[in-house]
Amino acid sequence: MKYKIGQSAEFSKTISESDVYTFAGITGDFNEVHINEVAAKKSVFGQRVVHGALTASLISTVLGTILPGSGCIYLSQESRFLKPVKIGETVTARVEINEIDGNKLTLTTQVFNQEHEIVLDGLAKVKVTGE
Amino acid sequence: MKYKIGQSAEFSKTISESDVYTFAGITGDFNEVHINEVAAKKSVFGQRVVHGALTASLISTVLGTILPGSGCIYLSQESRFLKPVKIGETVTARVEINEIDGNKLTLTTQVFNQEHEIVLDGLAKVKVTGE
Amino acid sequence: MKYKIGQSAEFSKTISESDVYTFAGITGDFNEVHINEVAAKKSVFGQRVVHGALTASLISTVLGTILPGSGCIYLSQESRFLKPVKIGETVTARVEINEIDGNKLTLTTQVFNQEHEIVLDGLAKVKVTGE
Amino acid sequence: MKYKIGQSAEFSKTISESDVYTFAGITGDFNEVHINEVAAKKSVFGQRVVHGALTASLISTVLGTILPGSGCIYLSQESRFLKPVKIGETVTARVEINEIDGNKLTLTTQVFNQEHEIVLDGLAKVKVTGE
Repeated sequence: MKYKIGQSAEFSKTISESDVYTFAGITGDFNEVHINEVAAKKSVFGQRVVHGALTASLISTVLGTILPGSGCIYLSQESRFLKPVKIGETVTARVEINEIDGNKLTLTTQVFNQEHEIVLDGLAKVKVTGE
Repeated sequence: MKYKIGQSAEFSKTISESDVYTFAGITGDFNEVHINEVAAKKSVFGQRVVHGALTASLISTVLGTILPGSGCIYLSQESRFLKPVKIGETVTARVEINEIDGNKLTLTTQVFNQEHEIVLDGLAKVKVTGE
Repeated sequence: MKYKIGQSAEFSKTISESDVYTFAGITGDFNEVHINEVAAKKSVFGQRVVHGALTASLISTVLGTILPGSGCIYLSQESRFLKPVKIGETVTARVEINEIDGNKLTLTTQVFNQEHEIVLDGLAKVKVTGE
Repeated sequence: MKYKIGQSAEFSKTISESDVYTFAGITGDFNEVHINEVAAKKSVFGQRVVHGALTASLISTVLGTILPGSGCIYLSQESRFLKPVKIGETVTARVEINEIDGNKLTLTTQVFNQEHEIVLDGLAKVKVTGE
């Protein structure tokens, strides 16, 4: 295995309105805080926010394309949603290996906004195949 | 609160190739098992499969649109990915309330394929606002 | 052949954020200057810009739908990227026949922004079938 | 500079119907060979084919995300379209550095299908910033 504890990787993106709308279109999650500006303004968020599941999916991006990347099989994910992400915010998903057990990795997974605040905190387990 | 333990809801969808490709396009997760048929055939899956994060996102759909629906705030999600979902399979995301604590609900969350096999098993915590 | 030297056609579009994001999603080109507003601000461009390959693709639109349109087969394209196109800018792709050789056409291909500045300059060769 | 002549990188994708349709939707290139199965069957291609401009755009993906990746500025691209790519084919875009001049790189750019046939042959020039 070429991995070591403390190894990390990240992926950043400004989440656009089209991301949120397309994500709603794929999943069917049309909750008003995502796609209804009038209702979102009256909600606790004050404006339209990104689906937590979309924010969490950016962790899958890092796992599936960088660390471990090719050969990665997702075993489990725990995510705690700590702060909302508003449409137009730039987030960074970061994973860091904290345990290695044969071909299985446990990684801490976090997503930050452009103010370096943690918006999502969690833990992933993956298996690496084909090495 | 209008909720009770054991209350459940579900949402079903056939996951199309365009769902998987568009999801890759939003998230940036271009791992070969999702968008490269030649490589996917040689992988442990034998064909292109749906992103686990997309399957998990269907739980958010039930939570955000049916139970509890409007006013739902996602606090946390744990997901274990038990079986792959192939492009073209029809999955059903199901949530069931198993704990109520004031305006917070804990729900078991599962996704089944058309053979009634559990492909994802987990737990969600949500807060209900605006009631 | 119904074509003559100097004959021209054009197609204009305001390139939206969703165009750029969807193009990134199809191609996998998630370079930070296209989809990360924070990083793009620090880059030489100062803000998110359109993929050069997307700007160039608008030439294909004119060739494939207007001149020569139906029956067009793309043989080659040369493109020089002269200025960046920012998200929200309105560009016009223009082609002009400058050589006719049997059923093959050579066309100068240019893309302008709304200030009439050339952002892309090039040359296309196409074959016309089915006439 | 960390680059050397002969250095290469590649990106592979099965081009789906949804890729072609979405690309048509962004660019406006609705030529019948891409989005009309009845007309495409009567054309020289015998079935719907991928836009050459989409195939060419995968070169931009390698340049913008892998080699040179971050900091890449596209200066020019020459592409010769040698064979059609049908919907559902798996293509690999490959770039290889063949000239280095200060912070400017010249790269041969090729796209192959799953039969290892060259479908696009060309040359790119890029500038690398921010190093």
